[in-house]
Amino acid sequence: MIRVLVAHDTYLLRSALAALLRRESDFEVADAGWPQAGEAARSLDPHVRVVDADCPGWRERSGAFAAGDGSSGALVVLTGGGKPGNVRRAYEAQALGFVNKDRSPDRLPAAVRQAAQGKRFVDESLAMEFLQAADMPLTRRELSVLSLSAEGASVTEIARDLHLSNGTVRNYLAAITRKTGARNRVDAIRISQVAGWV
Amino acid sequence: MIRVLVAHDTYLLRSALAALLRRESDFEVADAGWPQAGEAARSLDPHVRVVDADCPGWRERSGAFAAGDGSSGALVVLTGGGKPGNVRRAYEAQALGFVNKDRSPDRLPAAVRQAAQGKRFVDESLAMEFLQAADMPLTRRELSVLSLSAEGASVTEIARDLHLSNGTVRNYLAAITRKTGARNRVDAIRISQVAGWV
Repeated sequence: MIRVLVAHDTYLLRSALAALLRRESDFEVADAGWPQAGEAARSLDPHVRVVDADCPGWRERSGAFAAGDGSSGALVVLTGGGKPGNVRRAYEAQALGFVNKDRSPDRLPAAVRQAAQGKRFVDESLAMEFLQAADMPLTRRELSVLSLSAEGASVTEIARDLHLSNGTVRNYLAAITRKTGARNRVDAIRISQVAGWV
Repeated sequence: MIRVLVAHDTYLLRSALAALLRRESDFEVADAGWPQAGEAARSLDPHVRVVDADCPGWRERSGAFAAGDGSSGALVVLTGGGKPGNVRRAYEAQALGFVNKDRSPDRLPAAVRQAAQGKRFVDESLAMEFLQAADMPLTRRELSVLSLSAEGASVTEIARDLHLSNGTVRNYLAAITRKTGARNRVDAIRISQVAGWV
């Protein structure tokens, strides 16, 4: 039996994903929300963990996975197409499986079985996202500025938070707008959110 | 047997929701993505249609439901908490069922059975969202301005699209920022998107 832990922010959707996986007779499936998912992974000792990359809970915690959070289980990440930021975050968290949510649901059990054997599973329909993920347009500092701006922080607030001058923050915001091919700051935020960079 | 049609933007999640509903022995379940969901509803003639309010595909089409799109079936809408805009859109589309995605998945089959009998099902945990939905802070015109702004349009572009002067658009944006209790325009967009208004 392959022990699988499904983590998703919403109760209904993680129950639904678990119902889908329970149709496989060789899977033993549990599910958890964030932040309980880390604890569940430690106590259940799953062979495979399945996470939805669109969950804010996962985005906040993917760094802990990358650093090794003390829990076990190979990682399979679900993402829609057009979100290279999700692919990059999953890659940095050492995911073995990359499943496209827009494609046939048959891929998910296949990815789980591969990951349980320590083998990589990459949905070939995500090839473009991998290329774009390798070619991330923004620096780490620019991402910090953009994240704060997307939360509604003003130039002065961003400058204070990151210990920068207002002029430097404005330069970063101008660089972000140029690099993302955006029309203006709001457009840069929208483009980066759609791509999953922030 | 209750015929149920599940509509969701992503293939994997609608398959998962369908798997969850198929555990009920009195349900006959089909699923479809947008824009096929309207056509599927006409050919399958479902008793109940289940839609996820967070799907862009639903947001774009909820107006057609409200106007009666020629398809049949009582409407059950899934939403997370804190999204009064979703509740309002569902109400305007004459939904019978309002299910909180953050609560137990047992509510969904109960809502489907109620809706199949033409009865309303409202998750009591959504009470606050109903109150807020009744008290929508923005006018229709302000929502149009905000939607264009959220897509990255400049003041000049918004003015041209809506046949307004630049000054009028700036006044609308200032009113939107004030009414949503936001710090600035980016914050107003963020707050309105979280609430599901745009």
